[in-house]
Amino acid sequence: MHPTREQVLAAIADGPVGGPAIASDLDISRAAVWNHVEALREDGFSIESAADGYTLAGIPNYGGPALEYGLDAPFDVEYHEKIASTNERARELAAEGHADTVVVADRQTGGRGRLDREWTSPSGGVWLSVLVRPTIPPAQAPVYTLIAAVATARAVRECGVEATIKWPNDIRVDGEKLAGILTEMEGEADRVSWLVVGIGLNANVDADQLPDDQPATTLRAETGDIDRRTVVQRLLTEFWTLAQSSPETTLDAWRELTDTIGQRVRVDTPTGEIVGEAVDITPPGALVVETDDGTREITAGDCEHLRPA
Amino acid sequence: MHPTREQVLAAIADGPVGGPAIASDLDISRAAVWNHVEALREDGFSIESAADGYTLAGIPNYGGPALEYGLDAPFDVEYHEKIASTNERARELAAEGHADTVVVADRQTGGRGRLDREWTSPSGGVWLSVLVRPTIPPAQAPVYTLIAAVATARAVRECGVEATIKWPNDIRVDGEKLAGILTEMEGEADRVSWLVVGIGLNANVDADQLPDDQPATTLRAETGDIDRRTVVQRLLTEFWTLAQSSPETTLDAWRELTDTIGQRVRVDTPTGEIVGEAVDITPPGALVVETDDGTREITAGDCEHLRPA
Repeated sequence: MHPTREQVLAAIADGPVGGPAIASDLDISRAAVWNHVEALREDGFSIESAADGYTLAGIPNYGGPALEYGLDAPFDVEYHEKIASTNERARELAAEGHADTVVVADRQTGGRGRLDREWTSPSGGVWLSVLVRPTIPPAQAPVYTLIAAVATARAVRECGVEATIKWPNDIRVDGEKLAGILTEMEGEADRVSWLVVGIGLNANVDADQLPDDQPATTLRAETGDIDRRTVVQRLLTEFWTLAQSSPETTLDAWRELTDTIGQRVRVDTPTGEIVGEAVDITPPGALVVETDDGTREITAGDCEHLRPA
Repeated sequence: MHPTREQVLAAIADGPVGGPAIASDLDISRAAVWNHVEALREDGFSIESAADGYTLAGIPNYGGPALEYGLDAPFDVEYHEKIASTNERARELAAEGHADTVVVADRQTGGRGRLDREWTSPSGGVWLSVLVRPTIPPAQAPVYTLIAAVATARAVRECGVEATIKWPNDIRVDGEKLAGILTEMEGEADRVSWLVVGIGLNANVDADQLPDDQPATTLRAETGDIDRRTVVQRLLTEFWTLAQSSPETTLDAWRELTDTIGQRVRVDTPTGEIVGEAVDITPPGALVVETDDGTREITAGDCEHLRPA
């Protein structure tokens, strides 16, 4: 959001405040104040004007300005009612040189998950992609998948839904998939140029709108419709905070939220299937599995939780 | 090159062979044989036709068909007399879904090295980018920088020039830079989608055409002009062979060719300067440096060889 527009909003949040006072405080003209107020109304903010000044009476439910307003993280938000893929759009923004930008859509028509799998994204879900440019080597990129998983699980738990993380990138409730994460990147061999972390959260959608190839659930089914603005802002704030902290902070938070560790698992890796007990996660995000042949660290693969042997 | 065209070339390599015999051997029409011969002539191949048939009498010096002909690696070659950047073009080809393709240019107008540094690329040099899609996690990408360094150093040594490798990506002769490498990638957090390995080799160019910000040399200065086709084909064959082998094979080859190991070095890393003796390289390409404070493994940075303390 335009920085001055943000200041106007802040000024009238506990209104009423007169236009001349705002103009004087922000060192802009009265006409500029009026223009910002009109622009904010067009963005969906409800602003009462009375003799004693302007008062912010309501904010839009969702969308770019609503998500930026009150967001405790320095992300720009680009909102789309409908888009092919928020990750694809974030990659375009990356190519144009943008940073610290979040693309959010009400629905995606061509959403994708890991390994180019289709990701169904009906209206009412939370479909977003975070574009960041951290100073890390590509080897550290999986940390951002963990950051996204922790941020999503925490935001969901604030809704009263006991989500857990299944390694590497699923958020589940009682074994049913609630959200998934797709981290993409570009860079040189020893430094990332950009990372795009896509998060798909089945929020205010009917479970029967989702494909039945795996057990899936939605926030609507678990707890009823939630306020997506609150959930997205919590998620982005957690994401930002973890991204500024050490990888170990993220790993510790992840360990608290996962149900993979302690499980017997089967992991399909590019080099074969590994079966054993998941005992830990190590930087930047490898799963440690005790097998009959010794301890293995797995950096990539599809993980299935098995019943105890 | 068109596979049938390649077969026609192979058929007449030790000519003369009659058009009807070629048509019959390759199960194509005589008109098709004639068309392929004409197309090959347009590509610069010299083909004699006499009463007893066609004979390949000469191949073009350089360019796409010349580089593909006789190349012992399954790369397609796209050649440009002039292009902004072969890496940029290879990235475009990657986005279009291509694989195992090499972009070669006689000169680049906007060549780049690591960290977006300018890379001067006058006519006569070897400026190329290899596009591959290996099944590896991004953490393994630095191996491809080592592969390119070994392939380049070996191809240069075949010209009688004693090139050495300075970690991580410079090919030098007596401390003067002869070639550089820039490895770029895109992918998910746990698997590479594509790698583009750019190699810039100061071949048949005057040293005074190069910028004087660091000591640089050229093959022209070291040994006189070389046959670029031979050098590129050797380089690509070595590259392909190493890419099919284990990372340890590449590391062993790299150790043989480097002059960094055993040197006292100063490395500028994203997290600070490290000074000590370079003692080894470890997968996927980290330099091991013994410092006064212990052993450090450095994954990224600019390395300077110091005189003995």
